[in-house]
Amino acid sequence: MTQPHFPRLLSRTLRNQLHTNRRTYSSINYGRGKPAKSRMATLTTRVDQVVDRSVLESMLRRRAFYFPSFDPYGGVAGLYDYGPPGCALQANLIDVWRKHFVLEEDMLEVDTTMLTPHEVLKTSGHVDKFADWMCKDPKTGEIFRADHLVEAVLEARLKADKEARGEKVVVNEEEDAKKKKKKVKDVKLVKLDDAVVKEYEEILAKIDNYDGDGLALLITKYDIRNPTTGGNLLPPVAFNLMFQTSIGPSSNMPGYLRPETAQGQFLTFQKLLEFNQNQMPFASASIGKSFRNEISPRAGLLRVREFLMAEIEHFVDPEGGKKHPRFNEVKDIELTLLNREVQLSGRTEVERVTVGKAVSTGLIDNQTLGYFLARIQLFMLKIGVDPKKLRFRQHMANEMAHYAADCWDAELQTSYGWIECVGCADRSAYDLTVHKEKTGAPLFVREALAEPRKFEQWQVDITKSKFGPRFKKDAKKVELAINALTEDLREKLSLDLAKDGQIEIDVEGVDSGKVVLEKDLINIEKRTVVEHIREYTPNVIEPSFGIGRILYSLFEHSYWHRTGDEARGVLSFPPLVAPTKVLLVPLSNHESFAPFVKRLGLKFRRAGISSKVDDTSSSIGKRYSRNDELGTPFGITIDFQSVKDNTFTLRDRDSTKQVRASEDEILQAVKSMVDGEETWTDVQKRLPEFTSQETD
Amino acid sequence: MTQPHFPRLLSRTLRNQLHTNRRTYSSINYGRGKPAKSRMATLTTRVDQVVDRSVLESMLRRRAFYFPSFDPYGGVAGLYDYGPPGCALQANLIDVWRKHFVLEEDMLEVDTTMLTPHEVLKTSGHVDKFADWMCKDPKTGEIFRADHLVEAVLEARLKADKEARGEKVVVNEEEDAKKKKKKVKDVKLVKLDDAVVKEYEEILAKIDNYDGDGLALLITKYDIRNPTTGGNLLPPVAFNLMFQTSIGPSSNMPGYLRPETAQGQFLTFQKLLEFNQNQMPFASASIGKSFRNEISPRAGLLRVREFLMAEIEHFVDPEGGKKHPRFNEVKDIELTLLNREVQLSGRTEVERVTVGKAVSTGLIDNQTLGYFLARIQLFMLKIGVDPKKLRFRQHMANEMAHYAADCWDAELQTSYGWIECVGCADRSAYDLTVHKEKTGAPLFVREALAEPRKFEQWQVDITKSKFGPRFKKDAKKVELAINALTEDLREKLSLDLAKDGQIEIDVEGVDSGKVVLEKDLINIEKRTVVEHIREYTPNVIEPSFGIGRILYSLFEHSYWHRTGDEARGVLSFPPLVAPTKVLLVPLSNHESFAPFVKRLGLKFRRAGISSKVDDTSSSIGKRYSRNDELGTPFGITIDFQSVKDNTFTLRDRDSTKQVRASEDEILQAVKSMVDGEETWTDVQKRLPEFTSQETD
Repeated sequence: MTQPHFPRLLSRTLRNQLHTNRRTYSSINYGRGKPAKSRMATLTTRVDQVVDRSVLESMLRRRAFYFPSFDPYGGVAGLYDYGPPGCALQANLIDVWRKHFVLEEDMLEVDTTMLTPHEVLKTSGHVDKFADWMCKDPKTGEIFRADHLVEAVLEARLKADKEARGEKVVVNEEEDAKKKKKKVKDVKLVKLDDAVVKEYEEILAKIDNYDGDGLALLITKYDIRNPTTGGNLLPPVAFNLMFQTSIGPSSNMPGYLRPETAQGQFLTFQKLLEFNQNQMPFASASIGKSFRNEISPRAGLLRVREFLMAEIEHFVDPEGGKKHPRFNEVKDIELTLLNREVQLSGRTEVERVTVGKAVSTGLIDNQTLGYFLARIQLFMLKIGVDPKKLRFRQHMANEMAHYAADCWDAELQTSYGWIECVGCADRSAYDLTVHKEKTGAPLFVREALAEPRKFEQWQVDITKSKFGPRFKKDAKKVELAINALTEDLREKLSLDLAKDGQIEIDVEGVDSGKVVLEKDLINIEKRTVVEHIREYTPNVIEPSFGIGRILYSLFEHSYWHRTGDEARGVLSFPPLVAPTKVLLVPLSNHESFAPFVKRLGLKFRRAGISSKVDDTSSSIGKRYSRNDELGTPFGITIDFQSVKDNTFTLRDRDSTKQVRASEDEILQAVKSMVDGEETWTDVQKRLPEFTSQETD
Repeated sequence: MTQPHFPRLLSRTLRNQLHTNRRTYSSINYGRGKPAKSRMATLTTRVDQVVDRSVLESMLRRRAFYFPSFDPYGGVAGLYDYGPPGCALQANLIDVWRKHFVLEEDMLEVDTTMLTPHEVLKTSGHVDKFADWMCKDPKTGEIFRADHLVEAVLEARLKADKEARGEKVVVNEEEDAKKKKKKVKDVKLVKLDDAVVKEYEEILAKIDNYDGDGLALLITKYDIRNPTTGGNLLPPVAFNLMFQTSIGPSSNMPGYLRPETAQGQFLTFQKLLEFNQNQMPFASASIGKSFRNEISPRAGLLRVREFLMAEIEHFVDPEGGKKHPRFNEVKDIELTLLNREVQLSGRTEVERVTVGKAVSTGLIDNQTLGYFLARIQLFMLKIGVDPKKLRFRQHMANEMAHYAADCWDAELQTSYGWIECVGCADRSAYDLTVHKEKTGAPLFVREALAEPRKFEQWQVDITKSKFGPRFKKDAKKVELAINALTEDLREKLSLDLAKDGQIEIDVEGVDSGKVVLEKDLINIEKRTVVEHIREYTPNVIEPSFGIGRILYSLFEHSYWHRTGDEARGVLSFPPLVAPTKVLLVPLSNHESFAPFVKRLGLKFRRAGISSKVDDTSSSIGKRYSRNDELGTPFGITIDFQSVKDNTFTLRDRDSTKQVRASEDEILQAVKSMVDGEETWTDVQKRLPEFTSQETD
């Protein structure tokens, strides 16, 4: 994930990258003059039905897609378990992801540990910067995330102001109900001065940019209190979002659960380069859980404390424009782009443009970034994302790390607004560089030059025989500090050395932080160097997928209900990712059906197609309805006719149409639809239709 | 995992279940009169080559199968990363596991969180009992696992005694070298009294049975000290093996990283039963990481702090003999069994017996357990385990939980001895019961009875209207305690109530632990009950797989080297699990080969077969050798003949034999071998042989 430079931005961007969509739906849409529409968005299904999100969520719970972890113990905020259909859907998504990215592009997949020692995350910046600001109410003990609190209170006041002015206000019923339940004190129908309204709106527009002091000022200035009790709050303090633990028995090795898989991948760079026989560019990839100790998790699967990520680190030579060898294959793919300029002017209009054109005009910085955006889109469409609800949003300058050339998020539209599901950032050489500088490990590439390069360089020689005895265990640190000296500094120090016979350099953590080196220890000279080998630290393009967020968005994109009956939900997953592909339904529990069910089940298993049997006593219609809610695309009925002539009906989930054909024909039709070689329309054309009433 | 009752056994068995093989290779083989042979076992390959383990391990590191995590930072004991081939092998094992168990048997797979709140693991017994004993050297700060230390020192003394007696001692060179490096002080060539030798041997035989006090006594009595310095040690203290953390910002919700996936599965029981439409029996399954904060990890992948498990919880009615509907399918499968009686008499002879016979004679307790043992064996053979190095070892009575009917481990033989890789235990109703009692959640089955059951029962009525106001937040706890009263106690209390007008009952955590209930709050009466519904808590049969241990054993079982050349290693993975199935080798980097390489790669991807290209400038022979070490079963050479007539050579890794045929024939042959429909022998018979020298 993006690893920015500025402290304030660091924590924000890291947070935002995968685990908030606050910026997206508040600062940008709301803050800049637009109504907070996306936040209050309703769920509109693929067939334009407007549905209360709670209807979908209750169906997902009922069908055990996911539910709060440790439910018998009252659950834990931000922790969810996946039940059988959710788990199968997730496994299928991962399978498609692995084929689409890892196998297709020969990426080097690694599995690195979640437990991570303190030092690694200290170097990466997470220990110091990966934090949110929180405020405590000393009376009740309640803890608030400071920026969320300011935002919520100011928004409530703006809303009250509008109502007081007699303007119409879009009401989010769910939030409204919650507030009523909590007896929120802050919301009084007070009309504000126009100037105050403007101030509030400006603050909301840039709420992500306030650090602890800034938030403290806002809280004091606008008298922001505990919304439920009206009590005063303590000033904001930083709360690190990593789960801390201790490795080994002596409690002297602090560690964390990783907040991203990326650091583990960076630290294997050297081994992977070697494994790849020193060929560049290459990509590593990793699929695994990461953890964030959110202050107050909300929005279901969208902000959780333990989540599955799939991350790619594509290592590329920073010279030569970051071209991609397969760019040609994707250049004509059209993307929906929300560029930086449009956002800066407070708007959200998107443009449809081919990747080729976007890269050639410089809108997308380079071919590699463009290539991955196109590949991400292909993946999203393959798994069933609604193309109308997919866009790529460019980061604005103040969202990005200072070193990043460009950064785009793949966002999916849901009833929670546009949700960042994939971040695609250029992390430059930042991570490899800091780890290299810290450890001295060769996290770089050595490339034989076609023609030797000749240049002048200030070189530092160390008298090794005296160096070790003098600095002992610190010798390596001092040496690293010397190697890190810039050319300018080397030139200046060579003059000092000539003049004073000694120099002083900064070495963090040794003595007082300053080390004095005499003439007999060190020598600095300008020399002509002929290089046959070029050493460079690769840049990293990082597509980083939040699988849980994609999964949840997919629920919303796939969900609709039968006309006129909200109780009959359907999840129209593509066969490729559907948890179960085929439902086997014997007409009744008559014993003559059993061998047919068994044989079909076996044949599907052999073909690698997951099937389930529903031989309960419910009606055929009820059994099909249940499986529409589970997203099972096909159903096969075994009836008395089957016993006679070995024919079966095959039902399509989305249209509820049926065909009837022989066993082999039915098996073959299912296989070809699951493999994506045919659609239901194709099958329906070539096999005879079967009509009968589905009895409810 | 087995969750035994006795405190001492609890920690031991839990530990042993997956993460030590100490018992196996020390108490049983060594302690009972046998030499510690398996501990000092060498690596014998599939073709009976005797190899130093370090040769294999260095090859695995060189080929990036696995390596220490955070290597640039010096690594962390007990944490390993899998590189590309290890990661692919692991993914393939998981894929086979999922098909073999989950899909084949319609198991309900769930994905539950690793973060687990304190209360859950308090109830399960892990907070109090999941611990090892450790001793600290107050001078050096070193920490020793107490039982390992006692064991090591006594073994060293026994060895020294043998040497002093002039007996021949089997020397483990590796351990010997380590001791020399550490300058072990304890080992002097002292002859011991015969009685002392006997005492030592008896202690070693039951080293797993000592608790902290017992170990403290041994340390004092036998003057056991820090082996490297001779310094005195502090008495053993319990060290809980779970990684602790804190969930949420207020630090008031302690939590742990799960030590097994099982608890998460138990807590979803109610939802899964409902999802399964209340049909019994059924099984849940889960694949995921678990964690143990080992005191001093060793033995590479065999004892690590973060590890992948695949666990099945099969829920079955305890009545009716735990029959299994598919038992018939496996009854003729022969297993290698090391039964309890043989072990008790200090021997290790195995017997070959069919599952059917073992269950009918009562050697294996029930059909369900027998069914899973057979299925585990089928899985092991499918992935390439050497059948001669697989056995099932029955737990002895003192290893098992008091409630367990039977328990068997699938053990794989390696150079570290016989390693427990799968535990297959009957956890009875223990876990569901304790969680139900703690939370009141309905973790049981309700089954309609064919005929109503009539019986007498002591029933307790609570005056709800007074109960709530009296006990407030504790009301539920008191009610749970009342419901848990036994029939006998109810009868006694009814008499007390009649006599005294009040009774006293134990309620943990309320008031002083005793609660007084007056007549107006409670009524106890004997009534005739007619039951139409039977309620029961299912028993759990749990096959629990340590994937990392299986993976490592598979390395040893698959490894061998070309005759006469230890430097040319081969990993003979079956095509099903091999990290890469096909290597594509263009003869040189001549441009005419490129389109062929590309087309073949594309066709293999389409067919779902993973292939890699090696187009480096190394010789064909070198490229094949490299991929023999990666376990790639097939290789295709693209040469000038290919450009002419579109034929290719296909090479078999194990025999290095080659055939030559057209593109379609070659593709089809690879596919049928990967799918397990043909073997190389079949292909070699029907396609023309190709002979040429592999140039090194």
